[in-house]
Amino acid sequence: MRQVLAADIGGTNIRLALVSEDGCIIDETRCTAELSRHNLQSQQNAEVHILNALCEVIQPFADMHAVTSLGMGFPGFFHSQSGLLASSPNLPLLRDFALAERLAEQLSIDVAVENDALCAAIGEHRYGAGKGYANLLHVTLGTGIGSGLILNHAPYSGEHGMAMEFGHLCIEHHDGRLCGCGNHGCVEAYASATAIIRRFNECCGAHSDAKEVFELAQQGHDCANRIMLEAGQYLGMAIAEAVKLLDVTSITVSGGLSGAWDLLYPALMSELDTNLIPPLKGKVDVLRSTLDDNAGLLGAAAIAP
Amino acid sequence: MRQVLAADIGGTNIRLALVSEDGCIIDETRCTAELSRHNLQSQQNAEVHILNALCEVIQPFADMHAVTSLGMGFPGFFHSQSGLLASSPNLPLLRDFALAERLAEQLSIDVAVENDALCAAIGEHRYGAGKGYANLLHVTLGTGIGSGLILNHAPYSGEHGMAMEFGHLCIEHHDGRLCGCGNHGCVEAYASATAIIRRFNECCGAHSDAKEVFELAQQGHDCANRIMLEAGQYLGMAIAEAVKLLDVTSITVSGGLSGAWDLLYPALMSELDTNLIPPLKGKVDVLRSTLDDNAGLLGAAAIAP
Repeated sequence: MRQVLAADIGGTNIRLALVSEDGCIIDETRCTAELSRHNLQSQQNAEVHILNALCEVIQPFADMHAVTSLGMGFPGFFHSQSGLLASSPNLPLLRDFALAERLAEQLSIDVAVENDALCAAIGEHRYGAGKGYANLLHVTLGTGIGSGLILNHAPYSGEHGMAMEFGHLCIEHHDGRLCGCGNHGCVEAYASATAIIRRFNECCGAHSDAKEVFELAQQGHDCANRIMLEAGQYLGMAIAEAVKLLDVTSITVSGGLSGAWDLLYPALMSELDTNLIPPLKGKVDVLRSTLDDNAGLLGAAAIAP
Repeated sequence: MRQVLAADIGGTNIRLALVSEDGCIIDETRCTAELSRHNLQSQQNAEVHILNALCEVIQPFADMHAVTSLGMGFPGFFHSQSGLLASSPNLPLLRDFALAERLAEQLSIDVAVENDALCAAIGEHRYGAGKGYANLLHVTLGTGIGSGLILNHAPYSGEHGMAMEFGHLCIEHHDGRLCGCGNHGCVEAYASATAIIRRFNECCGAHSDAKEVFELAQQGHDCANRIMLEAGQYLGMAIAEAVKLLDVTSITVSGGLSGAWDLLYPALMSELDTNLIPPLKGKVDVLRSTLDDNAGLLGAAAIAP
């Protein structure tokens, strides 16, 4: 059975895996790399830096497994036609960069790269809870909220690779919380792990991580419970908006916060149903990912050329 | 040059036209027909009634012009695969009805039918301000707010034909105005002609039509002016949400209310820009339709088989 290399690139964390055609992770390694640096000054420097940083971790793993094909999920916007990396929020110096092509030259293997959140959707659609659906909206609840869309079995990334900025749908138009994007009231400012932690700290003055907050909520902690229920409600409101525009009725949710499914799901479904147009009420399936945090990695494997 | 028949079906008003391949309306007639009746009781009765009502007005016009192909915009949801009319808000008895096929049999001509708001998008894309754009979001500001989407030069209607329920995007999550769909806070409850009239009547106790309200606003009437500016702002907010999900950066607006473009446009653009994600700020074109209220009719002509 064919095996390919998959890479899931985060801000500092990189996951590499050898993946078989049927979606089994045969070998995996995790490492860190400083992809964004502040002293790069020019686009050329930034390009050389990112290529070297990626090759440094990928080359030994690729050599060890003697694979010739790499699929990669990368945090950035990719032009749907040219495949160029249009821009990346964490790497502002990079513009219209032929990341896949340059990486392929340097590694001497075939490379395809796609937006990381879209890779998670591709993974869930190919191997996970979204298998078999022609149309799928996949939401990743992590540090931020990522999202990817499958339309008629194909990934949809929009004209500028900026489609499915689901995390920045506005669900509080008045006095909304400040989001990392600079706007107010985005769903990411209420239902991402970062938001959960921040809200809990504000309410209880205690520093914690998101997992602790939802475990406290599960044990009946009032404030933690309210924050988790509200996160579910806001997610339901945002999913309703997406369904109204896309008429996609299969939704999958992955990421660390989906561990709190028993809290999130009822609140999410109730608010979703309230906000849908009447003919779609009760007709939207929201499923917990069956791939946990491997959705992005397996999606990367799925796009390997 | 090839000529086809186009029909734009409203709740009671029907427009029929003979249209040339280059989008010229050669002959046109307007009539009324009572398509929805309360005493039909069964789906079979409703089917026979709607077919007869449509044929009664279409047949003479088709015979007169000896055309063999009809494109029709109809207020309902059409299954994207089968082309069946899944449902129509005004004709609740009709379910999964082969409207195009049955009409073709009865009229003995070729017939294609599509959702009316999607027809307007198709018309604007083929013949109007949206010409040449691969991706286009078209918004019709009428009694309600309709919307249609072109992706990669092709109409997108979603899995159940219910995509682009743009008019029901929620832009007021707290104490939002009641919308005709039963939900609260939909953009249609603020920026449709019906909403403009209702809001003006509430504020001034005067009965009026939407055109009078925006003419008063243009003359500096305080309340009319505020209502029109708010309509523009809410439209801008809703368009921002659509752009965040779809990454479509070409928007066209038609319908009676677009006559108030000088009032709507600045308010719309300002609010749109505020609400977009940073990389898309300043990059979205919102254009007034060049087809006025012919967008739907010309789109119907464009889908004629």
